[in-house]
Amino acid sequence: MARESGAYEGASRRQPVREPAARTYARALPVVPVRARGLTIEGADGRRYLDCVSGGGTLALGHNHPVVLEAIRAVLDSGAPLHVMDLTTPVEDAFVTELLRTLPPELAGHARVRFCPTGTDPVASAVSLVRAATGRSRVITVADEPFPDGLFPRDGEAGQEPPAGLLLEPVRSEAGVFPAADALVRHLRARTAEQAVPLVVDETGTGVGRTGAYWAFEHSGVTPDVLILAKAIGGSLPLAAVVHHEDLGEPGEPGDSDGAGAAGRPASPPAGGPGASGTGAFRGNQLALAAGAATLAHVREHRLSEHAAALGGRMLTRLRALAAEFACLGDVRGRGLMAGIELTAPDGTPGTPGTAARLAAAVRRECLRRGLIVDVTGPGANVVRLLPPLIVTEEQMSAVLDRLADAVRAVDRHRPDGTAAIRAGHGPR
Amino acid sequence: MARESGAYEGASRRQPVREPAARTYARALPVVPVRARGLTIEGADGRRYLDCVSGGGTLALGHNHPVVLEAIRAVLDSGAPLHVMDLTTPVEDAFVTELLRTLPPELAGHARVRFCPTGTDPVASAVSLVRAATGRSRVITVADEPFPDGLFPRDGEAGQEPPAGLLLEPVRSEAGVFPAADALVRHLRARTAEQAVPLVVDETGTGVGRTGAYWAFEHSGVTPDVLILAKAIGGSLPLAAVVHHEDLGEPGEPGDSDGAGAAGRPASPPAGGPGASGTGAFRGNQLALAAGAATLAHVREHRLSEHAAALGGRMLTRLRALAAEFACLGDVRGRGLMAGIELTAPDGTPGTPGTAARLAAAVRRECLRRGLIVDVTGPGANVVRLLPPLIVTEEQMSAVLDRLADAVRAVDRHRPDGTAAIRAGHGPR
Repeated sequence: MARESGAYEGASRRQPVREPAARTYARALPVVPVRARGLTIEGADGRRYLDCVSGGGTLALGHNHPVVLEAIRAVLDSGAPLHVMDLTTPVEDAFVTELLRTLPPELAGHARVRFCPTGTDPVASAVSLVRAATGRSRVITVADEPFPDGLFPRDGEAGQEPPAGLLLEPVRSEAGVFPAADALVRHLRARTAEQAVPLVVDETGTGVGRTGAYWAFEHSGVTPDVLILAKAIGGSLPLAAVVHHEDLGEPGEPGDSDGAGAAGRPASPPAGGPGASGTGAFRGNQLALAAGAATLAHVREHRLSEHAAALGGRMLTRLRALAAEFACLGDVRGRGLMAGIELTAPDGTPGTPGTAARLAAAVRRECLRRGLIVDVTGPGANVVRLLPPLIVTEEQMSAVLDRLADAVRAVDRHRPDGTAAIRAGHGPR
Repeated sequence: MARESGAYEGASRRQPVREPAARTYARALPVVPVRARGLTIEGADGRRYLDCVSGGGTLALGHNHPVVLEAIRAVLDSGAPLHVMDLTTPVEDAFVTELLRTLPPELAGHARVRFCPTGTDPVASAVSLVRAATGRSRVITVADEPFPDGLFPRDGEAGQEPPAGLLLEPVRSEAGVFPAADALVRHLRARTAEQAVPLVVDETGTGVGRTGAYWAFEHSGVTPDVLILAKAIGGSLPLAAVVHHEDLGEPGEPGDSDGAGAAGRPASPPAGGPGASGTGAFRGNQLALAAGAATLAHVREHRLSEHAAALGGRMLTRLRALAAEFACLGDVRGRGLMAGIELTAPDGTPGTPGTAARLAAAVRRECLRRGLIVDVTGPGANVVRLLPPLIVTEEQMSAVLDRLADAVRAVDRHRPDGTAAIRAGHGPR
């Protein structure tokens, strides 16, 4: 959609000058996407790439899935308003109906859904909710890497008041793709239930089939009290919501005309800022609700979570075989179509800060040269992450893994630090 | 776009049960919009309303403007990806090109544009930016109501280090529609320039022609160092950005793969939360960029800011005449197509807390009965706000003001507190 002649060529030339600092993906991935479908992105230079970033896991059905485009066009053609603050619309009602279909009956039957305005983090909204519901303020998050065995409550904290809530991400994706053990999740659910502490599960990165279950909490068989939803639920467009059990109450304030939704106060007050409320105007925009409902339904009807479980399992097996082959590869973690491959220093340790990160960046670069887009994540920026869309085929997955293996081989051969490859004898991974 | 039979009827019945707390507009405005065009919303019950909320000022061109729909459809038809993290695209490039056309050359020629992910407030992003640029932390906001005469620096603060930035909203909309005097803005610009303090202007609610200038800061002839943009720039879809002078630097961190953009760290860290980064995936989604570029261009080409100035001026004149007629109406404030009408207690004072708010809610309710949708704002919820779209015609504006006058008359006649109307002799407004 070039609005001026030469826009395709000009875009990548101009962009680095105009907005260099805000761009991280743009810096690492010098691609100007002009067309995309499914797993494939076509750049302005005519090259085609297999996209395993998927908008950070947002694109459950890949790029421009027909059901998503159809849903968006249906809204446009219907003359429905695109934006009406938080007024109820049939589009939104259809989304909520579809969403509730995917949840366990014990939650769906007592669910409240709160769409979060852009500009207000649904995590902060959920935190406000449980604080208001319990009258307590401390919220525990499972933030250690990897997940600890016995987290809650901590030793030595006996006698302390129970927390307002326990926040759990079933796979800690940005932290380096650390899945929580099902037993740990069950343990945490049991302990929180005992003390009437709301269990908040953040399904932002894991929901809608990604991990091989529709919602990742299903693996452990528990039912959370609060769900944080974002990314894939918008079907390519921005949408975030908090779903919670009705028992947690309805603390919204009538005067809260622009705020956090959840607890009737802005969840992340900026520095006393005017305009803080500005971006709060969008609570569930209509195109995102339509695209999201279509995505939720398609994943459910086509059992794409089962496909993700099967294909994801084979992906992890192949990645582990690759890791056994190359010394620069360490731990391989993941669940379903969500995988992280840790890069390590030549001796198999994390090495000096930066060594592993440089290797990960080199793998990403070599992947890109081979027409494969992958992500790097983790606090040490040393984990290559694969998030292929749920519609990936066996053949496409083979192509992805072949290109990745080839890229790793190239990096292993030409170490940025000049050391030779060491294929055995390194420490435990 | 009913996805199931009976959705139209079911939506408003089901919604209050499912998500009562998060809904503020939905509670005050029991309308289920199914179609909308320009100023008009059609409800599921077949009734038609004149919409003077305009998505909180988001809909500069009203509902479903043809240029907006055309721009969205052009992206869909082109096969362009809807979401590619922050990768540069021709769609985004066209938006930035159009945006820079609307800015003063001294800013446009040295501008950096940072799109804000949903989930990260652009205000917080701008605050991070100036803090990083100056190495200082204190950010002054002009938050008193009404605007003080000599704000900066405060008396008695001599010798104190200058602040990291001064944040100014040209019309403090959510605070009750308080326009800043041009002389004050010029004074603040002069004082900030003297001390090399970045002037941050929040155009979230005022930008894109709303106040009778393309950007509200133009009224005073100053050029800010940082602009906060949201709402109207997305052309009905969610989009937020910070524009700043290149001299403020480029503090983005390479490792910041999901965060605030602006200063390389999450602008509003939630409570240690997993998934904090989750909603950071959307930085300028493609449909919003396309709809926004079309809106920016249409407002510029059709000089809609001049239309807003002319029609807005007449609106304020008529509202002031109305306020002189009814004791329950106090101050009338605004600029361009942005007006606030303060409700007061019967004696012309703000009265006991709640009195004026009940009157404002009553006016909103009576407006709705007459097919007019208006907003209530201000910390005391006692300011009726009118934000008609910029495409409102003289005839539509007359209809809006007639209905409003009729609603006020009804409220004045049947005071909720049972007192009779007092038409003269009350104190200064």
